[in-house]
Amino acid sequence: MIEAPPQWSLHPQLAKDTINIGDLPLSRLLLINDANYPWLLLVPRRLGVSEMIDLDEVEQAQLWTEIARTGRALKTVTECDKLNIAALGNVVPQLHVHVIARRQGDAAWPKPVWGAVPPINHDQYEADRFIAELRRRLWLVDPAA
Amino acid sequence: MIEAPPQWSLHPQLAKDTINIGDLPLSRLLLINDANYPWLLLVPRRLGVSEMIDLDEVEQAQLWTEIARTGRALKTVTECDKLNIAALGNVVPQLHVHVIARRQGDAAWPKPVWGAVPPINHDQYEADRFIAELRRRLWLVDPAA
Repeated sequence: MIEAPPQWSLHPQLAKDTINIGDLPLSRLLLINDANYPWLLLVPRRLGVSEMIDLDEVEQAQLWTEIARTGRALKTVTECDKLNIAALGNVVPQLHVHVIARRQGDAAWPKPVWGAVPPINHDQYEADRFIAELRRRLWLVDPAA
Repeated sequence: MIEAPPQWSLHPQLAKDTINIGDLPLSRLLLINDANYPWLLLVPRRLGVSEMIDLDEVEQAQLWTEIARTGRALKTVTECDKLNIAALGNVVPQLHVHVIARRQGDAAWPKPVWGAVPPINHDQYEADRFIAELRRRLWLVDPAA
C-alpha cells in the first residue's frame, strides 16, 4: 500500500495570527491580526521550505511575481507612503513573506513593525472591506465561499 | 547644448555605513559596518527608485536573481541558521535590500536586527577575508583594484 504524501498545511502560529484572504497560484495570502498597519503575509504552499532560496527557480520567480502583485495592490488600496517587504522567519520556520503598508506617523514609524507596539484588534467592518478590495484586485476567491 | 543626464550615486547615509564589495549587473553589493552579524545590502544602481515595484519588470527579475545569488553565497560562506531578507527603506529612501546571515544566539536573535543592539566594529582582517570570499563566489571585481 502506498501512503499518501504529507500535505502542506499552514503553520499553527501563522494560522492563529491571521485571517485567510485567499490562494494565489503559489502562496496563501493572509491578513495579520493587527490593525496598527495593513500587514499581509504570503506563505508558499510548499512542504518543508524555510528560505526563499530553498524554492526551485520557477517557484522563486512565481513567489517574486506574487510579492510584486500583492505589493502593488496593497499600495493602491492603502495609498501608503512605503512598502516594507521581508522574509525573516527566525521564530516560525515555515517560509512566509511580510508585505506591509507603512505610513508616516504610524505606530512604529520609521522603525520596523516587529515587536514595536502591542497589536490591536481589527474593526470587523473595516477589515472585511479591506479584504474584499484586495480579493477583487488580485482575482482571489473567498476561501469560505 | 544637451546636459548630461543625472547620474546614479549611492545615498550618503548608505555610503557612510558600509564597505563597497563590488557591482553585480544591477546592484552594488555592500557590507554593513556592524560585526554583530554578516549583513549585506544590495542597492540597484537606478536613479530615484524607492520601491522594488518601481523597477521595470526586467530589473525586478534581475534584482531577485541578485538577491538569491547573494543569499546563497552568504549562506554558504557563513553557514548561518537563517537568512533575513528585507526591503524596508523607511529612513533612507534609496531602494536597498538587506541580506543578513542570522545565527541562533546572535546579538538580536530571534528578533530582527534593526535597532536591536549598538553596532560593533569589524575586525579588519576578518572583514577582508569575508569580503574576498564573497567576491570570489559572486565573480566580483574589487572596486579599488
